[in-house]
Amino acid sequence: MEVLNLLVGGPIENWPAELKHNKIEGPWIGVDRGSLRLLERGITPIVAVGDYDSLGSQEFDLVKEKVQDIRQAVPEKDETDTELAVTVALREFKVDRLDIYGATGGRLDHFLANLFLVLKDRYRTDAPKIRFIDRSNTISFYLPGEYEIEKETDKRYLAFIPLTPIKHLTLLDEKYRLKDEEIRFPISYASNEFVGDMGHFSFDSGLMCVIQSKDVR
Amino acid sequence: MEVLNLLVGGPIENWPAELKHNKIEGPWIGVDRGSLRLLERGITPIVAVGDYDSLGSQEFDLVKEKVQDIRQAVPEKDETDTELAVTVALREFKVDRLDIYGATGGRLDHFLANLFLVLKDRYRTDAPKIRFIDRSNTISFYLPGEYEIEKETDKRYLAFIPLTPIKHLTLLDEKYRLKDEEIRFPISYASNEFVGDMGHFSFDSGLMCVIQSKDVR
Repeated sequence: MEVLNLLVGGPIENWPAELKHNKIEGPWIGVDRGSLRLLERGITPIVAVGDYDSLGSQEFDLVKEKVQDIRQAVPEKDETDTELAVTVALREFKVDRLDIYGATGGRLDHFLANLFLVLKDRYRTDAPKIRFIDRSNTISFYLPGEYEIEKETDKRYLAFIPLTPIKHLTLLDEKYRLKDEEIRFPISYASNEFVGDMGHFSFDSGLMCVIQSKDVR
Repeated sequence: MEVLNLLVGGPIENWPAELKHNKIEGPWIGVDRGSLRLLERGITPIVAVGDYDSLGSQEFDLVKEKVQDIRQAVPEKDETDTELAVTVALREFKVDRLDIYGATGGRLDHFLANLFLVLKDRYRTDAPKIRFIDRSNTISFYLPGEYEIEKETDKRYLAFIPLTPIKHLTLLDEKYRLKDEEIRFPISYASNEFVGDMGHFSFDSGLMCVIQSKDVR
């Protein structure tokens, strides 16, 4: 499968306009309240992850009535609902890209659990397939290598955010450049910008998060 | 000075109710649009950090007219506006506690720059003085040691989020416990809970972020 979308339960106000207007293509997996919100918009997720605890029994009954494939994370397995959904997308549907919506604007422990998920051994090599998208941010992940990335037309800012120690970080042709920088702990090099439509960067070790963003008022 | 508050420019909808209703005590520093928003609410910040770029010249004129002490970060110094404000609060006003509002809900590169700020050498020992507060989250930071923390009455969830490798993490009496856990990379142990009003935890090395949170719809 090429692209799969995943909706978790964060506030609707943080959704990108395309999601608010039902303009996102491809199948969906819903997590917790995300499943319900998809159903409310006429989208039946191919898998719903969640349980009574996260939804309330009447809401959960509705999800059970509509969705064929329902999964529940087992607390003892030390896997969150979102992680189970990511596992299903990557391992069962073998997606090339997984776009996750609804992960921002609410509880920050949830957001950080999702952001740091890609650092876990079982997901790390698949990190480049995963994106988080909200109304003002697109988050993507990179393993060591040399990259050319394209500016999103509606975004202004570009940020490089090593989530681990990183060696030889070079920002070749962005507004603010770096050459063979060594990073010892997580840091957000925020408010950088593309010069033109493309940007090039490279690094030798660790995991890089890249965010394209725009201001919201 | 005991407590100083800092307002940065994130969306108002993410503010806690106490801030919306002007119920927060103590002096303020404003950063960028935060200075303007304080003035709009009848609060004159003791320091305003920002420039024309972040505000627009008419808005900046208003800030200049009202605020006696205006600072601007120097891009070459590799210090952001928020960092400059934190430096002023810690070094000049020698605060015991710095509560930062307006840091969430907008650009995630900004939020992560703020969250990871405490990892920088020049701020790390002061990390326990800094909190980030929004409508559903209180973020605080801990250096190695043994701690007793108190449940906030309006919050339900408790999260332990090592931002660095951490050794011997013990969660003694929370709903989900850990004993002498070694953490290799940032992770968010989300959705834990207090059992009763107090919780105890300890660790030997690294820097721990703790978030108390509640759901928002």
